[in-house]
Amino acid sequence: MSAAKRKGVPRKSAKAKASTAKANVLKNTVRANSSTTGSLKYLAWNDVEVEAMNPLLGRQLIVGHQVMLARVLLKKGCIVPLHSHVNEQLSYILEGALKFYIDGKEIVVHAGEVLTIPPNMPHKAEAMEDTVDLDIFNPPRADWINKTDSYLRK
Amino acid sequence: MSAAKRKGVPRKSAKAKASTAKANVLKNTVRANSSTTGSLKYLAWNDVEVEAMNPLLGRQLIVGHQVMLARVLLKKGCIVPLHSHVNEQLSYILEGALKFYIDGKEIVVHAGEVLTIPPNMPHKAEAMEDTVDLDIFNPPRADWINKTDSYLRK
Repeated sequence: MSAAKRKGVPRKSAKAKASTAKANVLKNTVRANSSTTGSLKYLAWNDVEVEAMNPLLGRQLIVGHQVMLARVLLKKGCIVPLHSHVNEQLSYILEGALKFYIDGKEIVVHAGEVLTIPPNMPHKAEAMEDTVDLDIFNPPRADWINKTDSYLRK
Repeated sequence: MSAAKRKGVPRKSAKAKASTAKANVLKNTVRANSSTTGSLKYLAWNDVEVEAMNPLLGRQLIVGHQVMLARVLLKKGCIVPLHSHVNEQLSYILEGALKFYIDGKEIVVHAGEVLTIPPNMPHKAEAMEDTVDLDIFNPPRADWINKTDSYLRK
């Protein structure tokens, strides 16, 4: 008995191998296309992993091609330290209230309100109550995707 | 009495005129910068005009630099005819349910769910119930901003 059969792994015929190779080429082609233009995706926020950044801050991501959605869950008192990024940001507060320190001003953004933040404009935020914030970024935040956002992980 | 004084318009001194000219240069500079990178804006959806596209379809826009948010209000039975656009679209259903006809499939997207639609992918939509849909576009939809979207105005 071959090693493959002992482990319950069916061995592939030459024809099956060719078919698999063809499928992989097709899959890689689709992937290549997707990486150029994005792909059709259907997702429920309830099925998207909540990443615990710190005890007061959770985050979910849905990443498109040039746009990324982040559903940011902040407990009252949570502080997002002063930072800036090249990405344009639109923050739409879905529940609660977030006080932004930005451009020399303090702006409390409540549920049903939106703040548009241009690229490279430093900002800090503080949750005035338990808050659900939808952040929209262009382009997607590489530091959030590859988890190099140490300023949030304290 | 001068014409200006009769109309209650105070005449400006040379100094005041120079100051206004300086302020306009500054304003135009700020505008020029804004058009390059977007600007900080704080808006409540309640204060954003609802454009009545047709009896079943209303729409509000918040336009950033490279990202546009549209809060789309659809009454049950509203149909958005088959169309496509170069803009990437993410549709986040906030209330209700929208059935998409896209990529040879029918996908009912409910409240709390998101569909990511790549550029140039034809799609049609039908409101299964009264629905609030947040559409995110990159870049902003020129046809929605300059009101040349006749496919929606029937």
